[in-house]
Amino acid sequence: MPVGWVESPLTDRVQAPRQADEGAPPAWLAFEAGVAEALRDLRPGTEIIVVTWLDRADRDVLVTRPRDDPGRPLTGVFSTRSPDRPNPVGLHRVSVTAVDGLRVQVGGLEALDGTPVIDVKPVLDLAAER
Amino acid sequence: MPVGWVESPLTDRVQAPRQADEGAPPAWLAFEAGVAEALRDLRPGTEIIVVTWLDRADRDVLVTRPRDDPGRPLTGVFSTRSPDRPNPVGLHRVSVTAVDGLRVQVGGLEALDGTPVIDVKPVLDLAAER
Repeated sequence: MPVGWVESPLTDRVQAPRQADEGAPPAWLAFEAGVAEALRDLRPGTEIIVVTWLDRADRDVLVTRPRDDPGRPLTGVFSTRSPDRPNPVGLHRVSVTAVDGLRVQVGGLEALDGTPVIDVKPVLDLAAER
Repeated sequence: MPVGWVESPLTDRVQAPRQADEGAPPAWLAFEAGVAEALRDLRPGTEIIVVTWLDRADRDVLVTRPRDDPGRPLTGVFSTRSPDRPNPVGLHRVSVTAVDGLRVQVGGLEALDGTPVIDVKPVLDLAAER
């Protein structure tokens, strides 16, 4: 069950950038009222990992090649950023830019409008081991 | 539906370290035969993010405090590493140490034996934006 949904001007998968630094727009995350307490320490400036369920992905895909380089060999999806994969989990490292009740604005999110949000993590989860 | 399962000497949540650098043991990831092709570019030395479903978590928890510091104020789980949260997704940054068919050995995985694996990502997904 999603804890929230992405509200974004991105509505078309082909138009969506593959990486945040390729020009993804700001987006709002609209959370369910039932998880309000879980959100309460998010602040503008906080870096988070938004975990999404990429509901428009093709779950039958096991190997792929980059869209922009069709000459490359096929690569197993567990070694790629492809949204097409058996369980299409999306990980998005973004900064919180505003908080308005159950709505959290983030910068540079490469997920389509309506994408379910399943979890939010501190960036510490993956960066602190370095 | 899981793509695989964790095989680890860790069987007890209290004994499990909270972060990989606190001494988590090596573990094997045993994948389903149906996703063999998705694995094919994993090699010893590859750094990956293993995405798990922390099936022994308490999904009713919205606020928590560190186990080792009960004097600290309650914190919303979206700002913590707590496995207890509405959708208990685990993110584990680890290195591949061996590959044997459908079995992949990784170093320092802080997940319990039998934990479902739902996805595997290249570390690029979260590190390349820096």
